[in-house]
Order: sequence, then structure tokens, then C-alpha cells
Amino acid sequence: MINSIFFVVPLSSLIALFFAWFFFKQMMKNSEGTDSMKRIAKHVREGASAYLNQQYKVVIVVFLIIAVIFSVLAYGLGVQNKWVPFAFLSGGFFSALAGYFGMKAATYASARVANACRTSLDGGLKLAFRSGAVMGLVVVGLVLLDISLWFVILNFFIEEMASGYKLMTITAIMLTFGMGASTQALFARVGGGIYTKAADVGADLVGKIEEGIPEDDPRNPAVIADNVGDNVGDVAGMGADLFESFAASILATALLGAAAFIDNEALQINAVLAPMLIASIGTIISVIGVFLVRTREGASQKELLKSLGLGVNVSASLIVVASFFVLKFLNLPNYAGIWGAIVVGLIAGIAIGQSTEYFTASAYKPTRIISKCGQTGPATVIINGIGTGLISAAIPLIIIVTAITLAFLFATGFNFDIAYLNKGLYGIGIAAVGLLSTLGITLATDAYGPIADNAGGNAEMCGLGSEVRDRTDALDSLGNTTAATGKGFAIGSAALTALALLASYFEEVRMMFVKFLDRPQELINGIPAIDAEFIDFVYHYEVHLMNPKVIAGILLGVMAVFLFSGITMNAVGRAAQKMVDEVRRQFSSNSDIMKGKSEPDYARCVEISTKGAQKEMMLPSFIALFIPVVVGIVFGVPGIAGLLLGTISSGFAMAIFMANAGGAWDNAKKYVEEGNYGGKGSECHNATVIGDTVGDPFKDTSGPSLNILIKLMVMASVVTVGVAVSYHLL
Amino acid sequence: MINSIFFVVPLSSLIALFFAWFFFKQMMKNSEGTDSMKRIAKHVREGASAYLNQQYKVVIVVFLIIAVIFSVLAYGLGVQNKWVPFAFLSGGFFSALAGYFGMKAATYASARVANACRTSLDGGLKLAFRSGAVMGLVVVGLVLLDISLWFVILNFFIEEMASGYKLMTITAIMLTFGMGASTQALFARVGGGIYTKAADVGADLVGKIEEGIPEDDPRNPAVIADNVGDNVGDVAGMGADLFESFAASILATALLGAAAFIDNEALQINAVLAPMLIASIGTIISVIGVFLVRTREGASQKELLKSLGLGVNVSASLIVVASFFVLKFLNLPNYAGIWGAIVVGLIAGIAIGQSTEYFTASAYKPTRIISKCGQTGPATVIINGIGTGLISAAIPLIIIVTAITLAFLFATGFNFDIAYLNKGLYGIGIAAVGLLSTLGITLATDAYGPIADNAGGNAEMCGLGSEVRDRTDALDSLGNTTAATGKGFAIGSAALTALALLASYFEEVRMMFVKFLDRPQELINGIPAIDAEFIDFVYHYEVHLMNPKVIAGILLGVMAVFLFSGITMNAVGRAAQKMVDEVRRQFSSNSDIMKGKSEPDYARCVEISTKGAQKEMMLPSFIALFIPVVVGIVFGVPGIAGLLLGTISSGFAMAIFMANAGGAWDNAKKYVEEGNYGGKGSECHNATVIGDTVGDPFKDTSGPSLNILIKLMVMASVVTVGVAVSYHLL
Repeated sequence: MINSIFFVVPLSSLIALFFAWFFFKQMMKNSEGTDSMKRIAKHVREGASAYLNQQYKVVIVVFLIIAVIFSVLAYGLGVQNKWVPFAFLSGGFFSALAGYFGMKAATYASARVANACRTSLDGGLKLAFRSGAVMGLVVVGLVLLDISLWFVILNFFIEEMASGYKLMTITAIMLTFGMGASTQALFARVGGGIYTKAADVGADLVGKIEEGIPEDDPRNPAVIADNVGDNVGDVAGMGADLFESFAASILATALLGAAAFIDNEALQINAVLAPMLIASIGTIISVIGVFLVRTREGASQKELLKSLGLGVNVSASLIVVASFFVLKFLNLPNYAGIWGAIVVGLIAGIAIGQSTEYFTASAYKPTRIISKCGQTGPATVIINGIGTGLISAAIPLIIIVTAITLAFLFATGFNFDIAYLNKGLYGIGIAAVGLLSTLGITLATDAYGPIADNAGGNAEMCGLGSEVRDRTDALDSLGNTTAATGKGFAIGSAALTALALLASYFEEVRMMFVKFLDRPQELINGIPAIDAEFIDFVYHYEVHLMNPKVIAGILLGVMAVFLFSGITMNAVGRAAQKMVDEVRRQFSSNSDIMKGKSEPDYARCVEISTKGAQKEMMLPSFIALFIPVVVGIVFGVPGIAGLLLGTISSGFAMAIFMANAGGAWDNAKKYVEEGNYGGKGSECHNATVIGDTVGDPFKDTSGPSLNILIKLMVMASVVTVGVAVSYHLL
Repeated sequence: MINSIFFVVPLSSLIALFFAWFFFKQMMKNSEGTDSMKRIAKHVREGASAYLNQQYKVVIVVFLIIAVIFSVLAYGLGVQNKWVPFAFLSGGFFSALAGYFGMKAATYASARVANACRTSLDGGLKLAFRSGAVMGLVVVGLVLLDISLWFVILNFFIEEMASGYKLMTITAIMLTFGMGASTQALFARVGGGIYTKAADVGADLVGKIEEGIPEDDPRNPAVIADNVGDNVGDVAGMGADLFESFAASILATALLGAAAFIDNEALQINAVLAPMLIASIGTIISVIGVFLVRTREGASQKELLKSLGLGVNVSASLIVVASFFVLKFLNLPNYAGIWGAIVVGLIAGIAIGQSTEYFTASAYKPTRIISKCGQTGPATVIINGIGTGLISAAIPLIIIVTAITLAFLFATGFNFDIAYLNKGLYGIGIAAVGLLSTLGITLATDAYGPIADNAGGNAEMCGLGSEVRDRTDALDSLGNTTAATGKGFAIGSAALTALALLASYFEEVRMMFVKFLDRPQELINGIPAIDAEFIDFVYHYEVHLMNPKVIAGILLGVMAVFLFSGITMNAVGRAAQKMVDEVRRQFSSNSDIMKGKSEPDYARCVEISTKGAQKEMMLPSFIALFIPVVVGIVFGVPGIAGLLLGTISSGFAMAIFMANAGGAWDNAKKYVEEGNYGGKGSECHNATVIGDTVGDPFKDTSGPSLNILIKLMVMASVVTVGVAVSYHLL
């Protein structure tokens, strides 16, 4: 059944992995610079490894427990459940591997980038960006590799079935590999987010505010933990997040394609391959894009941004053209409409990124107003930041609404009839794949940020010359801009992916009907019997909006978002408190530290952040995994349907609110530091520093963790679908 | 068709209005005290009147415009639309009247309460509470009066119809009178909320923080505006909010009753009367409860709370017993189950109030932790307050989920079959009526708070003796506790009411089918033809959760909540800024003010708050009215259904989050002021003052305004149902 064109998928995976290896090797050939640069880099690298090792230990235990639960409770949990534990484990394994390689590359790169900046800006930019590309390419390469392996294996092992049910079954099983990626991403995002902000807030509250020493001062005991935090939060966390989105969007769309074209097996395989092929072509194009990024000496901030933009924009344009021919080649009916959905997804991703930039960059009014509020004190800075953050959620929501409506309409040829529902949902999935198709290069720009940041920190700590620091500052500042748009991209892709996953959830429900009733071939009025019953069950009598079970589900979905955000927010507070105590202790017990005569105990701070993050990540993670199961047991499929929509809608809005409020506070502070409204050291500056500290857990812990929550809750529902279908109380 | 027992409704209305008049007259017999007390009271009274006059002018214009739109676009807008403009206007008129009387009573009472406290605590308590009861009883009295009038009028004018459709039509028209109450409440809550916090934040930022003078110091130019704000925000705003909930819950439940018992006309009229009768009996019981509130001299805070609690709890217990006999008398099938739903509603209201108290009172851990965070500065106070506020939303959401599930199950006799759907939704409506049945007395405790607060302000400004101020402080402090639980009650009732309204929205859709197809009598398999088509349309092919129009609606509903909250939040910031400028100007231009030799220009500050509130309330109000119409035009009924559920679920969570975070910050500050963590003037105190200022717009502007948003958007959808049914684009 496997079509020969399928082999483009493993091939592109190998290409991506080859270039990841190539960029890594190239980077390693560069020198790390002076002894002190090497020493600082080693501290950060060891801290990051220590954290990742510790986290993976915890994650392995959790994974084994979950896998055992899946195996023991196998009957009735889901579709063809004997494969589920393995698919689950493989998803987690590959995601962890990607995080490991990506972070290795980042931590080896920072001193080298600082050293390259001693010679030229272009050298520094290229090195930093290509080191970031290691993460980008490893992520997409391993996703495509895992997909390829499972597709071949399942094609071999799953027996033939009537009326297109074999591909439905295969894709339904493959989707559960996303659950492994989700669970791994949960710990990476939540743990990494708590780690990085505990270190950051702790370092700032004592170092900057109490002792008055600058950021990245080697006398600050928490400075290494802070630098490690950039890597575990922004590199490993972001990578795991997008690994999951990339995998889940492809797999959900494959399942939706299998369902939409179930009546024609020749078309069905093509519909299943379409998302895989688009992702593969996008990966190859991303490699080309990476090579386009370069700059000239003394380039302005704007030129630097243009250099990065060139790589991303050329890649996006190429994928628009290439995907049209892929779809034409696959000969799907209404391929132009499906292609329209891809374009819609790509545009939506860009539009959300731009709206993020408008609300968080100091070049625009919203952030400048927050800076101005600093003149009447911290309270007005906070009020205005929250107000602006809340308002800023509106535009991305409208963008997503427009995107799903257009994707649906294009893919159905402007038809809202229920008979076209599956085709329309396939269109929504394809839009998510389109948005993520250039992930190889967009993730490179994300991972570039913390590398440049750490390079700057290294240069600062080692006291390199001012022209070097000007170069690292230029790279770092560029990284701040890409970080903001990158966050918008990550949230937007999470929302579209979650909606595609939600649609595929109903296909899993349908498969459970097949499993329990065991007669997929019988026809009623030309429709397979199972479908008629399924439609009756799901759409007609249960999953409508006046069913109190659905309403209860929606309310509980919103509850999950508020509870999860609140707990992660308070977790940072507690973990930071411990860091504050430790830093204060080191300063008071050894007065040589402040004089610069004695090196502080960096490792102790790294350990505190690591332990704090491990401890604090357990409760929110448990909530995210637990709620869908409980709601499924109490309220069944209608409750789950409501739950997931409640979580996705309010979680998306909350994530945007938090990311943008945090970003705006950060840049409002920087705007004052540039000399506006009194500049550094003024009352206004102090007020905006408080805003920035409040924003830290907003934008780097609670906000990004919500990306995972909205996907993971759907995934957990998909994997335990049998519980909701068969064992619910109400 | 009108049953003789119906006349209990107008009778109870007259009883409520009589006692409101009686309490008002009794209060007016008391002396206002010294000349300076009279002068201060007059300032506040004139300021409040000026604001209300100004607001009503704006509201009248808006009402006339909307009424004209209803008349011009009459065809197709809704059910029997020729009555809609009048029902709309009457709802607004009676709500405005209630606000006018309630605020008159409050502003006449404050000096008299202060004066009564010169003699005894019991005298002060009784006077304050009974003055608050004027508001409570006017609200319930006028709601019941309006309902009685319309029920009689429509019974007379609406022609007879087959199969129970006459009562459906009457109740469907009556529901639109809630739209008038909603619109009036919107302006009262949003305008009042902006007014009160602009004045409060402005007075505090300059007076307390810059000039270091105490709260309620007569030298502060904004002090009168601040006192006026308590009246327009907490009396008029709260009153209009609950006027709407009370009216809408009764009217929605009447319509749901007409639908649930459409197959038996004898039962149908009883099901329609049930909510009205329960509200009427509750009103009479509330009057009894008011008389129970009294205390002894030197009563502790706990005893005072018990005095109020006695009135409320006895009323609630009596209504539990009385409603059982009412339902038994009405002879509804499964009346014990319906009675169970009433009890569920009452318990839910109490439980939400208690959860609010736990998260906001300084006697419990959450608020104390926020106080403790003050030791590491304002940033941690804000982070922890937001975290705690977000977490605190979880419990009320679980309470509401439990309440609607149980109410549904009780009312259907534990049956989730779609044939029982209408009976179950009637149960949810009845639960909302149960929650609100004791409104006469619970609203008295709400209005009592600002009266006691203003009495304290009056005593402070007039320099009355310390034993007087001890008494007013005791009354004021009691008011702070009732304010927190009152807010929880208001939000909980808004959520349940909104869900009942949502259920009735679908009945309005059904009525539109009757109107357009004009053959309500035809039967298919024993079901009226219209119903079969209606069920097909609404539940089967449109309003299911995988319809992208529904998903778009849910996302837009969440968007409305975030946008509305953000705009009202920033509105307070802008209005407060103007107040800050004016207060600074007065202090600098006339140095005699600070010396106490010259009276500041209070009127100018009152005017600034008034104008600021009028200006800033327009945009959020427009959004609330506009979004449902646009979504109806674009996405039709499925879009509206999603929109409303998105708004209700996320709006409820956001309202609880904001109210509780704000309340917790307020009390965390007070806890520090009591001498903990350094006490007044310490760094920790400063940090918590900043938290309190941030919390002001949370708990008194954006939070309470969301109560209105979630009800108004359903109401606007109900009134324009014809647009969504017939003129949608997609």
C-alpha cells in the first residue's frame, strides 16, 4: 500500500539530520577563545547537562509508569492499544533526543559565538544562527524519522481491512506517538520555565536591586543558573514544544485525511501522505533558507533583522509554490482549495507574529504608554500592562477564527453541509501543517536568541573589549525581537494544532465504534453503518451545545487553564524565593565574593533551580494529565468535547495575554533604559523594572506552558478515548 | 388563562415597595447631625445626583436609538417584535428607577448613620442596614411589578394559539424586557466602576502616596468624588447588576417552563408561574429577615457578622421550606426534583460566597502569603496575587458545574435522554431563581457596605469623637466582609442566570421557526412538526462541537471577555490619570488647601470622574452590544451558541479571578497595617499598597463589569435572534 513517493519523507528526514550534524561539526571547529571564556562556557554547559539529566531521570520514571498503565489497562483504552505504549515511548524518546542535541549545540556554541564576534559581526551571526539551526533541523528530522518508521512498521503489521479502515487504523495509532512528545514537552516547558525564571528573578532581586551590580556580573552566584536557564527554557523547552506541534499537526491531519477520503482508497493514501510530504518539502527548503542568512560588518539592527527575515521569507515563499505542485501531483480533488488552506495557515502564523511585535516592541504605542505609566509608579505600569495584554489577545483570536473559517471553506469548496465536514476539518489540519512547514528555519531563529544572549553574557563576564560587546549586543538585541515573534508563532501553531487534534479526536471516537461494534463494512443508505451510528451518537444526540455535559466540560476546560496558570505562576514565586535566600546567604557568608576575589558557588544555585523546577513541575503536570481522564470518566465524550474546546479557546487567549504583557513590560523597561522618561536609575525606571519582574513568569513560564496544556489535554483524551466512550458515569 | 395564584406576584411586589418606602421614611426621621456633617453629606449627595443625572442622560439617548433600531428593523429581528421596543424600554426604566431610589436612600443615610453611631452601635447598624434594604426591596419590588404588568398585558393582547404556543409567545416576549435591564446595568456597572476607581486611585496616588495625608481627609480634593464613587459603583452599579439577574432568571425560567410543559396546558401555566411565585415568596420572607437584624452595644466583629447572618440565613431556610410547598401546590410532575434544583441553587450561592471569603480574607493562608511576599517587594506581591486569583477561579467553576449537573439531574429524575432536555434546562433555570430568591435581603447587605463606609468617611471628615469612629469603623469593617461575599454571590448568580438565558435562547430560535413556517400545529410522529425541524436544525446539523462556526463562536466569545476586560482596565488608568493631574493642580495652585484653611474644589473632581466615566464607558459598552450582532450575521445560530458559551465560561472565570485577586490584595494590605511583617510605613506595607492599587480596577471595575457582559451578550442575542436565524452569511 505504501506509495513510492512516501520515501521522500525518510529522505528529507535524513537530509535534515545530515545538515544538523554538518552545522554542529562546523561550529565545533571554531575556538572557544580565552581560558576564562572556556571556563564560563563549561560552567553553563555542565549546569545545563546537570539539569537535563535530572529532568530526564524524572521523565523516564513518569514515562514508564504511564506506559505500564497503558499496557495494564490496555483493553478499552483506545484504538489498537497494543501499539500505544510503544508509540508513546518512541515519541517521548525522539523528543528528548532532539532536546538533548539542540541544547548541546547551544551550550557549545555560546563561547564560540562570542569569540567569533572578536573578528566580525557576520561570523558571529552565521555561527549563532547555524548553531540554532542544529536544533531546528534535529527537531524536524527526528519527527519525520519517527513518522517514517511507524508508517512502515504499521503498514507491515496491521492486517488488511475493508473500506479504507486500514489507513484509518494506522493513522489513529500513529497519533498516539504525539502523546509521548506531548508529555515530554510538558515537563520540558513547565520545568524549564520554572527553572529559568526562578534563576532570573532570584538573580535580579538580590543582584540588581539589593546589591546594585549589573546583569551578567560574575560576582552574582546565580549568574550561571540564569544563563543555564536561557538554554533549558528557551532552547530545550521551545524545541520540545514545537517538536510536538510539528508531529501532532502532521499526524492529526493524516488521520483527518484518511477519514475525509475513506470512500476512495487511491485518494485516501494520497490525502494521508499530503501533510507528510508538505512537511518534508518544507524541511528541505528550510535547509536552503539557513544558508541564505548572512550579513555585513557594522550592519544596523534593521539590516540584521532583514538578514534573518530573508532566510525565513524565501523559505515561506518557496513552500507556497512547492506545496501547490505537491498537491497537484497527489491529484486530490479540489487540490487548489486544499492549497489555499496551506497558504491561510502560513499567513496566519506570520500575522500572529506581527501582532505580537506590535504589542511588545518599544517602537509602537502600546509599550511606550506602559513606559510612560512608570512616571506615576509601579501600580499604573502593572494595570496598563495587564490591560494591554488582555486587549492584545483579541487580534490573534480573530486571526485564528479567520484562518479556520477560510481553511474550512477552501477545503470544502465553500460548503458547510455536514457531508463535507470531514473535508473541511482536513483543511484545518492542513492549515496547521502549512503554518509549521518552515519549522526547520523558524525554530533556528528561536534557538538563535538564547545562543546570542549567552554569547553576550560570556563576553560580559570575561570582560571582552567594547567592540566585541557591541557585536554581541547587536546579536542579542536581534534575538529579543525574534523571541517575541517566535513566541507568537509557537502559540499560534499550538492553537491550530490543538484544533486539528480535536477534530481527530472525533475520528478516534469513530474508530472505537468500529472496534466495539466490529462491522465496519455494513452499509445503510450507502453510508457505512458505523458512520451512521457514529454521526447519530456524536453529533446529534450528545455533542450539542445545550447538553449540560458539554457545558460542564467547557466550564471545566476554562477551569483547567486558570488553575494551571495560577499554579505555575506561584511555583516561580516559591522557587525564586529559595534562590533569593541562597544568593543572600552567599553574599553575607563570604564578603570576598562582592570584592571579586573569590568565585561564588555557582553550582549550588544551579542545584537549587534544578531541584525547585523538578519539585514544582509535578503538580501542574499531574493536573494536565489527570483532568481529561476524570472528565471522560464522569461526563463521557460530550464532556471531553466541551473540555477540550474550553481549554483550547481560553488557553490560547491566556497564553497570548501572558506572553504579550510580559514582552511589553520587558521592552517598556528597555525603552526607559534607552533614556526616555528619566532613563536608568529614575523613579520611572524602577517602576518599569518591577513591571519586568512581574512579566518574567508571565512570558517565560505560565504563558508558554499553556501551549503544551492545550495540546496535551487533547492528546490525553485521544489516548484514553475508550474510557470516555465506554466507561463514563453520566 | 391567568391563574388566581398569579396575584401573589403583584401583591408581593407591593409589599416590597411598601416596606422600602417605610424604611426610607423611618430613616429620614433621623437627624443628620452637626452642620459640618450635613455639609459633607450634601456634597456627596449632590455629586452622586450629578453623576446619575449625567449618566441617565446618556443612557436615555442610547435607549432611544436602540428602541428606534428595534422598531425600524422590526421585521425578522425577533419574536412578536412589535412589543420588543416597549418591553426593552420598560426594563431599562424600572432598573433606572431602582438605581435612583436606592442611591437616594444611601446618600441620605450616611450622615444619619454616623449620627446614630454617636448614641449606639445597634442604632447605627439598624439604620444602615434598613437603608440598604431600601435598595434591596426596591429592586425586587420593581422587577416583580414589571413582570406582573407585562404578564397581564400580554395575556390580554396575545391571541389564543394551539398547543401551548400562547404562553411560549408571551414568555418569549417578556424575556426581552431583560434586555432593557441589561443595557441599563451595563452603563451602571461600567460607568460606575470607572468612576469609583478613577476617583479612588486618583485620590490615593496623590493624597496618600505623594502628600502623605490619610484616607477620607477633607483636604483631599478628590475625597468627595471617592465617597460618591462608593455610591455610584457599589450601590447603583451592584443594584442594576442584580436587578438584571433577578429579572432575567425569572423570565428565562418562565420561558423554559413554557417549553418543557408545552404538551399540557394546565401544567404549563404552573411551570411558568413557579419561578415568579418562588421569587415572590422569597421577597416577602426577605422583609421578615430585614427585621431580624439587630445587635447589642460593644458587639464584636464576629457578633456583628452573626447579626447580618441571622437575617440572611433565616430567610434562606424559610425559602427552602416555603418553595417546597409552592411547588407541591402547583402540582408539577416531579416537584420534589424541581425543589431539589432550588436547593442546589441556594447552596451554590452560599458555597461561592464562602470560597470567595477563603481566598480574600486575611484570616486565611492565601491572603497572608501575599502579605508575606511584600517582604521581597511589590513584584512578588503582584505575581502571587495573580497566581492566587487564577487558582481561586477553580472552585467556583467546579461549584457551578456541580450545580448545573445536579439541577439538571434532579429536574429530569436522573435522565440524560434528549427527550428530557427541556425539563433539565428548566431545572437549571429554577436553580438560578433559587439562588436569587433571597435577593431582597442579600442586596440589603451589599448596599449596607457603602452606606457604612460613607458614614465612616463622614465621621472622619467631621472629626467626630473616637467612640463614634470606633462604632463606624466596626460597621465599615463588617461592610468589607459582606462586600467580598456579595461579589461572589453577584458573579455566581450572573453565571447561572446567563446559562438559563442561553437555554432560553434556543427557545427563542424555536419560536422564530414557528413564526417563519407558520404551522405550529402539524404533527410528525406525535411531535409538533416545528419541533422536529427545530431539533434537526439546532441540535443535529448545526450546533455540534465540530462545526467550525461553533468553534469560531467559542473563540470569539473568549475574545470578547479578554478585550472587554482589557479596555475597562485601561479606561480606569486613563480616567485616574486626569484625576491625578487635577488633584496635583489644586494642591499646587492653592497652598491653603493643605493647611486646611481653604476648602478644595470638590465639584471639579466630581465632574472629572463623571466625564471620564461617561467617555470611557462608551467603547466597552459598544463592544458588548456589537459583537453578538456581528457574530450572528456572519456565523448564524451556531456561531452565537458558541459565542455565548465562550463568553459565559471564560467571563465567569475571569470575573472570579479579578474579584478575588483584588480582594486579596486589599486585605493583604490591611493585614500588614494591623502590624504584621513590619506594619504601616514599612517596605512591606508599601509593596502591599501597590498591590492594593493594582487590585482596585480588578475588583471594582473590570471584574464586576464582566457580570453584565455575560448576561448582556445572551440578551442581545435573544433580542436579535431573527438576524442569526434568517440573515446569516455562512
